[in-house]
Amino acid sequence: MKKVVVESFTMDHTKVKAPFVRKCGLIKTPKGDVITKFDLRFTQPNKEAMPTSAVHAIEHLLAGFMREEIEDVIDISPMGCRTGFYLIIIGEKEEKDIAKALIKSLEKVTEAKEIPAVNEIQCGNYRDMSLFGAKEYAKSVLNSLKGKYI
Amino acid sequence: MKKVVVESFTMDHTKVKAPFVRKCGLIKTPKGDVITKFDLRFTQPNKEAMPTSAVHAIEHLLAGFMREEIEDVIDISPMGCRTGFYLIIIGEKEEKDIAKALIKSLEKVTEAKEIPAVNEIQCGNYRDMSLFGAKEYAKSVLNSLKGKYI
Ligand SMILES: [Zn+2]
Ligand SMILES: [Zn+2]
Repeated sequence: MKKVVVESFTMDHTKVKAPFVRKCGLIKTPKGDVITKFDLRFTQPNKEAMPTSAVHAIEHLLAGFMREEIEDVIDISPMGCRTGFYLIIIGEKEEKDIAKALIKSLEKVTEAKEIPAVNEIQCGNYRDMSLFGAKEYAKSVLNSLKGKYI
Repeated sequence: MKKVVVESFTMDHTKVKAPFVRKCGLIKTPKGDVITKFDLRFTQPNKEAMPTSAVHAIEHLLAGFMREEIEDVIDISPMGCRTGFYLIIIGEKEEKDIAKALIKSLEKVTEAKEIPAVNEIQCGNYRDMSLFGAKEYAKSVLNSLKGKYI
């Protein structure tokens, strides 16, 4: 396989104001498709990290909700720092389109009655899960994102 | 863009024996490239989850080490359940090739003198970071993976 071009945009974590959506990487596949990576930042770096139960619940919820809003989602995964998530898609999209999809998805989180796949067969740690925490973070992120992107 | 075919292989988390490497997803891009997703499972689902400081340190370390072993890495991210990581690559590879790359990378973790990018400019939560924890998990995962794949 031909060597892949990876373009990563470094970010100074002290200069950003969370929450935000940021295009943070671009990868070209050998046959000419483009893969784009987005930083979906929920909390302010090095000021507030989400508890694991909220991160985990949001991971389960956004896995379905973001795919309802955006075609060609490859992955959405938590950051090790617990301040947000990385979204990887096939194709190129603008930050504001991803932000709008995230807003719609987070609105669904605030209305969710349950978290999908919370059982020991489908999940690796089904006890560490907070729908309450997910909703509280969704609400505060939503408020700020709406101010920025709508 | 043409609709992407996503093939996800569901796994019964009560039936597996960690650690292991498992091909868990296949995505075809519009122009015909293949993207493969691997489950790099470190701890036994619903029995042991890694602390966030170890997960975060392993995330930073594997980001570089796995790219030294495998071309065409798109992403390697922690699971919300904290029992392992997802690796996403361009192309198709066998589980045993990924396992060998992971073994070499984890050997580098056990020998690491420092964790890259641990500062408030490059990281979102630079205080939640344990090189000690990363090494202890690397050692125990290494032992079992070598028995399975080498
Ligand atoms: Zn889970
Ligand atoms: Zn970090």
